[in-house]
Amino acid sequence: MKFSGSHILTVDQFTREDIDTVFAVADQMRPYAERRRITRVLEGAILGNMFFEPSTRTRVSFGCAFNLLGGEVRETTEVRASAIAKGESFYDTARVLSGYSDIIVMRHQIEGSVAEFADASRKPVINGGDGANEHPSQALLDLYTIRSEMESKGKPIDNLRIALIGDLRYGRAVHSLCKLLGLFDNLYMTLISPSELALPEEYTDALRAQGHTVRISDNLHNGIQGADILYCTRTQEERFPTPEEANRYRGLFRLNQAIYTEHCEPNTVIMHPLPRDSRTEASELDNDLNDNPNLAIFRQTDNGLLIRMALFALILDVVDRVHDSARDVGWYTGPPGQLL
Amino acid sequence: MKFSGSHILTVDQFTREDIDTVFAVADQMRPYAERRRITRVLEGAILGNMFFEPSTRTRVSFGCAFNLLGGEVRETTEVRASAIAKGESFYDTARVLSGYSDIIVMRHQIEGSVAEFADASRKPVINGGDGANEHPSQALLDLYTIRSEMESKGKPIDNLRIALIGDLRYGRAVHSLCKLLGLFDNLYMTLISPSELALPEEYTDALRAQGHTVRISDNLHNGIQGADILYCTRTQEERFPTPEEANRYRGLFRLNQAIYTEHCEPNTVIMHPLPRDSRTEASELDNDLNDNPNLAIFRQTDNGLLIRMALFALILDVVDRVHDSARDVGWYTGPPGQLL
Amino acid sequence: MKFSGSHILTVDQFTREDIDTVFAVADQMRPYAERRRITRVLEGAILGNMFFEPSTRTRVSFGCAFNLLGGEVRETTEVRASAIAKGESFYDTARVLSGYSDIIVMRHQIEGSVAEFADASRKPVINGGDGANEHPSQALLDLYTIRSEMESKGKPIDNLRIALIGDLRYGRAVHSLCKLLGLFDNLYMTLISPSELALPEEYTDALRAQGHTVRISDNLHNGIQGADILYCTRTQEERFPTPEEANRYRGLFRLNQAIYTEHCEPNTVIMHPLPRDSRTEASELDNDLNDNPNLAIFRQTDNGLLIRMALFALILDVVDRVHDSARDVGWYTGPPGQLL
Repeated sequence: MKFSGSHILTVDQFTREDIDTVFAVADQMRPYAERRRITRVLEGAILGNMFFEPSTRTRVSFGCAFNLLGGEVRETTEVRASAIAKGESFYDTARVLSGYSDIIVMRHQIEGSVAEFADASRKPVINGGDGANEHPSQALLDLYTIRSEMESKGKPIDNLRIALIGDLRYGRAVHSLCKLLGLFDNLYMTLISPSELALPEEYTDALRAQGHTVRISDNLHNGIQGADILYCTRTQEERFPTPEEANRYRGLFRLNQAIYTEHCEPNTVIMHPLPRDSRTEASELDNDLNDNPNLAIFRQTDNGLLIRMALFALILDVVDRVHDSARDVGWYTGPPGQLL
Repeated sequence: MKFSGSHILTVDQFTREDIDTVFAVADQMRPYAERRRITRVLEGAILGNMFFEPSTRTRVSFGCAFNLLGGEVRETTEVRASAIAKGESFYDTARVLSGYSDIIVMRHQIEGSVAEFADASRKPVINGGDGANEHPSQALLDLYTIRSEMESKGKPIDNLRIALIGDLRYGRAVHSLCKLLGLFDNLYMTLISPSELALPEEYTDALRAQGHTVRISDNLHNGIQGADILYCTRTQEERFPTPEEANRYRGLFRLNQAIYTEHCEPNTVIMHPLPRDSRTEASELDNDLNDNPNLAIFRQTDNGLLIRMALFALILDVVDRVHDSARDVGWYTGPPGQLL
Repeated sequence: MKFSGSHILTVDQFTREDIDTVFAVADQMRPYAERRRITRVLEGAILGNMFFEPSTRTRVSFGCAFNLLGGEVRETTEVRASAIAKGESFYDTARVLSGYSDIIVMRHQIEGSVAEFADASRKPVINGGDGANEHPSQALLDLYTIRSEMESKGKPIDNLRIALIGDLRYGRAVHSLCKLLGLFDNLYMTLISPSELALPEEYTDALRAQGHTVRISDNLHNGIQGADILYCTRTQEERFPTPEEANRYRGLFRLNQAIYTEHCEPNTVIMHPLPRDSRTEASELDNDLNDNPNLAIFRQTDNGLLIRMALFALILDVVDRVHDSARDVGWYTGPPGQLL
């Protein structure tokens, strides 16, 4: 893929080589994301951070990634207040908003809306999530985390044993991740879910066609044995026909430290696209895992910054110039101190 | 008008000479708005972008205009969350908020609210829309677009034939535009609307008193013949007593390519303050006009950036210094590339 | 207190020496807040301005304070759109968001939520208000205002006569201010409220234990006589069990110019944490006081910028470098001019 000027709409755009490119740039972003250096390479550029569906985490992550490259962020946070609510087409919205900024991140609950928007946009568009369809930066940060976690254990992504757990039907993060994983070699995938929330067949079929082993299970304890990676998910209640139906499945698969100790390899990595539902009726990933060093869920969100910075740098074609304007950070960047 | 430090509350403030001043500065802003150059002249300045009525387009446009001059933007997006909802007066709100920023843009649904706010403000205030009353930057960008579009056809604003179409009663954009147009010479205005949504008499009377010809029509096909400019509007349903009443008038005047071809001069310019209502029951400006090069509606919103940058530069008195800090843009600014 | 890297969660953290430190830095911030100079010391830093409870004033004040030091602001404005609404714990929210920014300001309606959040945060956190509990920057700006106002009259804070008026039960601003005032010597405090809205005993007991005189009154005219400072408050209707109960107390204590003239010393300072309720049924501080030079309410909010800048500079350890990057302001910073 030629990144310069490109829309990022779906993980289908990415070859294995493209992924290597994004990850190599993400690695270079680490000193900036970790506040050891600052860069001003995008000073004067504007991101249109257009979230027509509520979101805090993803919106703030994209915004911070752009700020960390020196750019400015203008944003919107809901559809209710927008012209779309007055009957404006995505075509018009795109034509107008793309006159204001240098690049746009868009989230909207309607599947396909972001692609329709991008078609009419005069500036590159990144899909920040279109309903149950795609959320490519999430899939990239998940894959990048898998690579980073296993790298320190001396393993490549190829040949990994990965268990996906929970609502595999409605979770778009899982769907996109499966597509990216499919590009690698010889994976051993275990899909653990209630049968009603199984991964749609198109994904299992594709994985098998690419030569991966796919095992299906509805038993958490058996399914997680021998895995290198556990990828847990929240029940996506907002995508279910009714809240009651979502409630039926909430809390069916709960991972905690005791289960982990009994059934997992000592270094099995635990991931989750977040937010995890910590209400007692759900608790798919128990808080007693918070001190487990293999819990990678916050390294995932940290990596999200790197991936989003990399996408901005690649699309806006400034990778080679990021370091030109770099300088040391002059303020306190350590952990918070103890009170009194 | 002395622009430096002035509030911009109403188009009544502007003489024809003032308009020339704004437009000349707007012309100078083009390289920055089009990302051929960046300027940092307002680095360190803060815009208080106070939208107490929902808006995406206008709010983001003002915010981007300020960012493009190098300044920062702090903003609010609704009245519900504000102190005004706890009984705070506009006087207090203005005294407080004007202590935080260098300049304020305010929108509020109550007519006259922005003027009341400005009275107490310790910093210059731009009216971003106060109910059905005023929205001066919209009128300026509309007039600027008329000038630009006709300039390329070798015509000045004087002597133009302009048709205003649709809800001329509640559309504040139309009202303010009429006031500005009135400053020019010998216009031929056709007002096309259902009689219940006619332009209020104060505007027609004023135009006639200024020597312009005003013709009133309720027939779209006849009315648009011979016009240089068609200015279409959306039914302003939010200003009607009831939604049902608004529904009665929606879709009465629909312009499309076939009607345009049959009844208009070949180069008639099509304008609309946006958003246009693209729902099938409305569709005042059909999507089949999207490829018509005379459709100027997105040039209007692009021009909005220029006009708002010009107002900021004039009020904050930095016109002469905009170019001092200018430099070339170092990132990708072309159109989005093709996918895969 | 060691400020560098510290959370600011409660006024209980502050000794009298700490207060002197904050106020000395706040004094140094004045040229920047008043736009006589700009500094870029925090260029490249990001504030996470996380308001999970609606607020315009406090949110914009913190954001502007950070911008005035040269930093960027990413923010959220409500809980409804956040992962917290999907069952995410404060622990998770903190771990995630603290990976994005250099410092966080958080407001949330649940008492203790900000401290819980700070416990898990990897970056310093400032409490921007947690329900009826704490709002330390408000207490600091109130105390700073008392000091500034009395300084010009040649009086220190020690030995002052201060009347607190109105809803002393639910007003967190009053509670925190009482704690800070307690650190000074020999105050004469008059607490004027309906008995049902009296200051909770823990505060009166603490003040007396520290050697201050505390007088309790339900008569405005008597209570305010001889005071150096009147600190009025709004009925905090959002903290009452029902709106009806709040209505019973609204408008019981109304200060206006006539009462001021008859019962106060000529230079008695009038304060209010704002917003003041200017509806006729409330009007705790009449608009006829707006031209009284002793009305300090807008100097309070102006001082809020200074205090918040000082906290950021102290926590991020840049006090000594603020002036290094300082330069003159190049745009119009005077009062708004007269219209036409």
